[in-house]
Formats: sequence, C-alpha cells, structure tokens
Amino acid sequence: MPPEPKARRTVADPRLSRRRLLGGGAAAAGVVGATAAGWGAAGLTDREPARDWALDTVPFYGKHQAGIETTPQRHVAFVGFDLAPGTSRDDIIGLLRIWTDDAARLTSGLPALADTEPELAARPGKLTITVGFGPELFTIAGLPQRRPSWLRPLPAFPIDRLDPAYTGADLLIQVCAEESTTVAHAVRVLCKHVKSLVRVRWVQRGFRDPPSGATMRNLMGQVDGTVTIAAPDFERLVWEDGASVPWLAGGTSLVLRRIAMDLDRWDELDVEARELTVGRRLSNGAPLTGTTEFDEPDLAALDRHGIPVIPPSSHVARARHTSDGERFLRRGFNYDEPPEPGQVSNSGLLFVAYQRDIDTQFLPVQTRLAEVDALNEWTTPIGSAVFVIPPGVPGPGHYLGQQLFDS
Amino acid sequence: MPPEPKARRTVADPRLSRRRLLGGGAAAAGVVGATAAGWGAAGLTDREPARDWALDTVPFYGKHQAGIETTPQRHVAFVGFDLAPGTSRDDIIGLLRIWTDDAARLTSGLPALADTEPELAARPGKLTITVGFGPELFTIAGLPQRRPSWLRPLPAFPIDRLDPAYTGADLLIQVCAEESTTVAHAVRVLCKHVKSLVRVRWVQRGFRDPPSGATMRNLMGQVDGTVTIAAPDFERLVWEDGASVPWLAGGTSLVLRRIAMDLDRWDELDVEARELTVGRRLSNGAPLTGTTEFDEPDLAALDRHGIPVIPPSSHVARARHTSDGERFLRRGFNYDEPPEPGQVSNSGLLFVAYQRDIDTQFLPVQTRLAEVDALNEWTTPIGSAVFVIPPGVPGPGHYLGQQLFDS
Ligand code: HEM
Ligand code: HEM
Repeated sequence: MPPEPKARRTVADPRLSRRRLLGGGAAAAGVVGATAAGWGAAGLTDREPARDWALDTVPFYGKHQAGIETTPQRHVAFVGFDLAPGTSRDDIIGLLRIWTDDAARLTSGLPALADTEPELAARPGKLTITVGFGPELFTIAGLPQRRPSWLRPLPAFPIDRLDPAYTGADLLIQVCAEESTTVAHAVRVLCKHVKSLVRVRWVQRGFRDPPSGATMRNLMGQVDGTVTIAAPDFERLVWEDGASVPWLAGGTSLVLRRIAMDLDRWDELDVEARELTVGRRLSNGAPLTGTTEFDEPDLAALDRHGIPVIPPSSHVARARHTSDGERFLRRGFNYDEPPEPGQVSNSGLLFVAYQRDIDTQFLPVQTRLAEVDALNEWTTPIGSAVFVIPPGVPGPGHYLGQQLFDS
Repeated sequence: MPPEPKARRTVADPRLSRRRLLGGGAAAAGVVGATAAGWGAAGLTDREPARDWALDTVPFYGKHQAGIETTPQRHVAFVGFDLAPGTSRDDIIGLLRIWTDDAARLTSGLPALADTEPELAARPGKLTITVGFGPELFTIAGLPQRRPSWLRPLPAFPIDRLDPAYTGADLLIQVCAEESTTVAHAVRVLCKHVKSLVRVRWVQRGFRDPPSGATMRNLMGQVDGTVTIAAPDFERLVWEDGASVPWLAGGTSLVLRRIAMDLDRWDELDVEARELTVGRRLSNGAPLTGTTEFDEPDLAALDRHGIPVIPPSSHVARARHTSDGERFLRRGFNYDEPPEPGQVSNSGLLFVAYQRDIDTQFLPVQTRLAEVDALNEWTTPIGSAVFVIPPGVPGPGHYLGQQLFDS
C-alpha cells in the first residue's frame, strides 16, 4: 500500500516560493524533509545562468489541467496503467491524492514528498503532468453512470493493426517537459508512489523540436500542426462546460493513437507525390493552393486541366472539418524506437487529439480518414486509447478528479 | 547495393555556406537536388529567431573526429552494426565513403545526397557523427595485423550480466545533437544508405541535461562527470600520436558499457548511505572531504574516530587513477526505457570511455571496480562493446578510416 494520503501535507503553496526554498531556511526544510538542506544548499543558485528554461514552471492549479492549452514542450511520456484487480473507489481516491500532491510539487520545481532523487526535481523545465481516466475506471470505481457517453474504445477501423501493448488503459499520465531528465524523474516518482495499486501497461515516449514559435516537423518531414485551435476556441471545442457531463466542467477528453510510418516506402515517392498525398508543400507547409503556411487551403481550386489542385483523397482534404463541430485540438510527437531485426527504422507519430466530445468531434474525422486518405498507404495505427481528462485542481486541499467522486 | 560512392559529389565545401543555400540560387539547387528550392525557399529565414542553437554546427573535417573533444550535446544514439556475411574490403571502403559524405553534409546543416527528408537536415543542432570499428572489422577487411592490440572484447567481469542485444558490434556510429529530431534523421540516413551491407545489432539512445556550463546529473541523482580530462591532456591521454599504432595517429578508442541501475533498491538508502557509496555529496557533487564540486578529494582524511571520510570501497576511491596513465575521458548519458512487466523503471547509464589505449588506461580501473566498488550493489553492466575511433577526415576527397586502408 502507498503511504496514507492524509498523512501527506499539501505544500505547493504559492507563498513557499522556489527562491525561498532554494535559499534554505526553516520553511524549506519542512517541505522537503531530510534531504532539503543538501539539495537546496548548493549548485543551482551559483551555477545557473540568470535565465534558463529549465527553471520555468507552468502553474499546476486552475480550472483546467495544464498540458493541454500549454504550448507543447519538447519531450513527452504517456504512461497507461491498469488498476490492480480488487482496487476500490477509496484506493483510486488515495492514488489521485498522491498524484495531485506529487504533480503540484514537481511542476513547481519542488521534490515530491519522500522524493528519493530530490536533485532531479530542481529543473522542472515547464513540466506539466496531466491525468486521464480510461473507460473501465468508472466501472471499477462503482460510478458507471458518470462515465461520459463518448468514453469507450474507438470502433475498430479497417486501417488499424492495433497492438495490445499500446492499446487501452484505465489511467493515463501525460508528462511533458523541455528536458528528458525531468520527464524520466517525474514518471518514476508517479509510477513508484502508486505501484501497489497499478500495473504499467505501456510507456510511449515522444519528442517535438519546432523552431521557436513555429510549427514542428514530423519524421516524414512534413510541417505538422498548422491547423490548430486558438485560445478563444478552447472554451467551445476543448473544455466541457458541464452541460453534457456536469462533473466534467473544465475537463476534456484525450485520444492517443500510435501511428507507425513506413518510411522506407514513403521514401520511394518523389516530392510531388508526397505533396499530393498530404495536400501541402514539404518546404513550408503551405497548401498546394497557396504560398505560405497559414494560407487557407482552397479545396475547390482546379488546375488548367480541370483537376483539383488539392486531391480530394489527400490527407488535408479528408481530414478537414466539414462543420465547426468537427474541430479539435491536435498535437503530434515523433517517436523513434530501435528497429525490428532486418528493418531500418521504427518511427512514427504519437497522434493526440483533445476535444469535448469524442463522438461528435473526433470520430467523424477519424472515420472519414479510415475510409479514404492517401496517407494511409504509408501510415498504420498500431495503438489506440481514449481517456477523459478531469478538470483542474482549484487549489491546495483538493485532488485530481475530485469532481467525479464528490458529485 | 548502395549507390556507387564515386558517383556522389563531396560538396560540404566551406564556400557553400548555409546562408547561400537557404537563400536558394543555382549552387544550392545543385547541392540538394530537386527538393532544394522548396526546402530553402521558406520558413527558416523568416521564422527563426536571430540566434538558435539548432542552427549551430560543429566542424566535421579535422585531425580528429568530432564528438569526442566536443562539449557533449543533449541527445545521443549509439548504433552498433554487424557487417553482412561476405562483405569485402572494398564494400567497407564504399560504406565509409558514403558515411563520410553523409556526415560532412548533415553536420553542416545540409541534406545528405538523395536525402528523402531534406527538411529535417536544416536544424543540425551541433550534430556530430563519430564512426568506430569493432574488432572483427579488421578480420573481415583482411587487415588483422593493423588491429590495435587493445581492440578486443573486454574480459568477462564477475559483475557483468551482458545481454547480447547490447554487446559487441563490427561498426559503430555515435550520433549526438541538441535535438532528438536531428538525431533520428541522421541515424536513419546513415542506416538506410548502407542497409545492404550491414545489420543493425543495437540502437542505444541516451540524454543528458546539464545546467548550462555545469555537470549533468545521472538518474541516481548524482552529479556525474566532475573528474574529467581538459583540453591540454587530450593529446597525451585521448589521441593516439601514431607511436603505437601508426595508421591511428589522431584517433582513439571508445568503450561503451550499458549499466542498469536498480533504482528501487537504491531508493531504500538514506542520503548518507548514498553519499558514502560514491564518496561525494548528492547536493553539489563535492567530495566528502570538501565543500564544492571541484575540491580535490582527500582519500587519506580520517574522521574523529579514525575512520576514512571517503570509504576505501566507495566508487570514487576505487575509480580514482593510481597513476596518470590510468586516466581517460569519461562521459555518461542517461537512458530510460519502458519498464519490464511488473517493474517501475528500466533506467541506467550509457557509460562511455575514450582513451588511447584500453589496456593501460581503462582496463585497470574497470578491473578494480569489478573487484570492489560499493556502487556495484545497485548497478549492473548489461552491455559492452569496444571500438577504435579512426582519425578525422582532413578535408573533402578523403574518407573516414582511409588511413587504415591506405597505409
Ligand atoms: C502519421 C499520421 C499522420 C500524419 C503524418 C499527419 C500529418 C498531417 C499533416 C502534415 C497535416 C497538414 C498540416 C497541419 O495542418 O498540421 C495534417 C493535418 C490534419 N490532420 Fe493529420 N496526420 C496524421 C494523422 C492524423 C489523424 C489520425 C487525424 C485524425 C483522426 C488527423 C487529422 C488531421 C486534421 C484534422 C488536419 C487539419 C486538416 C485541415 O483542416 O487542413 N491526422 N496532418
Ligand atoms: C552506472 C554506473 C556508474 C555511475 C552511476 C557512476 C557515477 C560516478 C560518479 C557520481 C562519480 C563522481 C563524480 C565524477 O567525477 O564524475 C564518478 C566518478 C568516476 N567514475 Fe563512475 N560511475 C559509474 C560507472 C563507472 C565505470 C564503469 C567506470 C570505469 C570503468 C567509472 C569510472 C569513474 C572514474 C574514473 C571516476 C572519477 C574518479 C575520481 O578520480 O575521482 N565509473 N562516477
């Protein structure tokens, strides 16, 4: 059993600033326990340059969980967990209290309680920790009636070759940061503190390296992430307002698809064929009907032979929303794992979609792409999982997902 | 068969600056072929901030290969290859010509010849590509008499639990860069261009995230890399001068040990026990006899009970050179892979040592540590491989390892 959650103090109190902690002192010592003096005493303050992204933090508390509206960081680990047989509702609440406390501390650059590597917490690097619940959690918690209607495994698509090793899970953590070491430490803390209650089903690591302020490229070389959702649309398209799922006000959903790229066969195409497959240029991501990345694609434009400039079977023509209600927040992370014997690469995209309602926003688009999408020739979904992302934690004393259990 | 090496132009000519290429123009078009116009035309120049590490390059040509005296970058992939049965000396030379050309281009921010994702070459991010030869390459190339006497698998140590999946290889590439995407692209290009000649034996990815100008921490939380070799010592300790191995003047050797950390058991120790295990403080890496990281450890110092302050069985007491000739360049990269079923972590260190002579410099230290090292209780070598690192390529028209074949 993990340590009794109530015995843990929630101390990610804004008054306890990192500066005060790093300077040492009584309050700090109380927070991080036995290792605090050593950890805070040296190194950082005199060695760090004045400005270092590794010291940047993203606020943990708020109406929404961080890590969704947040500008994506360079490194991610998605970890899917199954709950151990016989887990009770109270066990789940205990686990969520632990994760809440761990996440509040780690994201503010403080070690977790009983953090055995507190030194690795000192560079949060914009760390965000986002927690999600899979469909079965509601059954296990005895709250099946609170499961959102859209929270169930996606239907089997003819393009899918799903590997159980990357599919489904009762619980999710999405851990993002600018540095891999930060991600590794946070994942270990979160996994370790609840290990008697869960089994790790999968860990999926990814990376994205956009030029500053610009759009990333995926491992097919494409500019990926151009069409996205801007701040004013989050309320409408991403955050549930409680009208459909009362306990979920401020929350959303996450679909994670692991999509393998057949780069060897993709590399046989010339540039023109690749651009026709997607409907955008490789050079700068401009639609084939435009010249710069953010030009609006013109799906009706014809060339001088009367043929559509952007092929109707191209990825963007098929993926484009047919109504405002089909839009969602889309995010990609590259993955690149050691190749299978005899292969050159084992690469692809961790495709992530966030939306209020999977059924009305994500599913129509995915269904359309599964029917016809020129890109399908070179991409294969090999993992799939869906989660509800509970609202944010309003402040100390509350825990992640509390709205589900209290309501 | 890979494309005939002689048909490829070596164009990593300093006069062809990236600026000229990015601006487009005839010379550029000639270099990157059909995709050049698109690739160079847009995006980068107007979207990048004035200063971006991703555009920094490390010179490829020189007396030594880059990637050794170079300040280590954040991300690494080590790829070990076996040569396909029946590979001839000329096949190996062909492969090395291809790699030379690929490395010269990629490290200067140019796409490789026939690069199918030229867009991913535009952010070299201090990319270095370092090539090594395993013991068997000399037999296969028909040059067993040129194999340095110290180039053979390390003796079996009692602490070893070597997994063949991470052990040995005929050829090595060490690919380092600040961004994971750069590493992924370079590894793919290098593997793909020689795929008919080799089989990938292993890929080992690692990361290090030191504070700027400071020492990294490993996943045990320790400051790792304090005692190292500074510029003036490279000539004496790292670079062969040709006295022992004439063809190798300017080259060196590389030992790669994959060392698993048992973090679950390590985490049971308190701070004091951990510090006694290594002989240095967790907070700032200072020796137990000092106060700041770079204080000289005093192995003779006794506490008031007459007990050594730095235990004689501690890692630093055992690892410390007993003569100048036992020093070598040491570098660690963290690794963190998905855990085995039922485990919390699968983490450790890619330990890399570079030295003129493995037998006289590295082996005495490793042998001593294998006999007694308090740290062995929590660390296990699970992979091991040794390589000679041929000298650098003096300029265009030459190829990596040519000194071996020409001499
Ligand atoms: C490996 C798989 C995939 C790759 C390489 C890929 C790549 C791309 C690229 C290059 C674009 C154009 C630039 C942009 O707007 O970001 C794009 C757009 C888009 N993709 Fe994908 N995609 C993949 C999978 C998916 C999946 C599974 C979905 C949804 C189920 C999807 C939905 C979309 C949408 C909605 C757009 C914007 C279309 C528009 O409105 O113009 N993509 N994708
Ligand atoms: C997971 C395995 C290992 C870990 C965690 C580790 C960690 C450390 C740490 C924390 C230090 C002190 C700081 C520093 O000088 O960098 C150190 C020093 C050192 N280590 Fe290791 N090490 C490991 C394996 C090895 C191996 C395999 C060797 C050589 C065969 C080695 C050789 C050395 C040397 C030569 C020093 C410097 C000793 C001195 O002169 O003070 N280490 N190591």
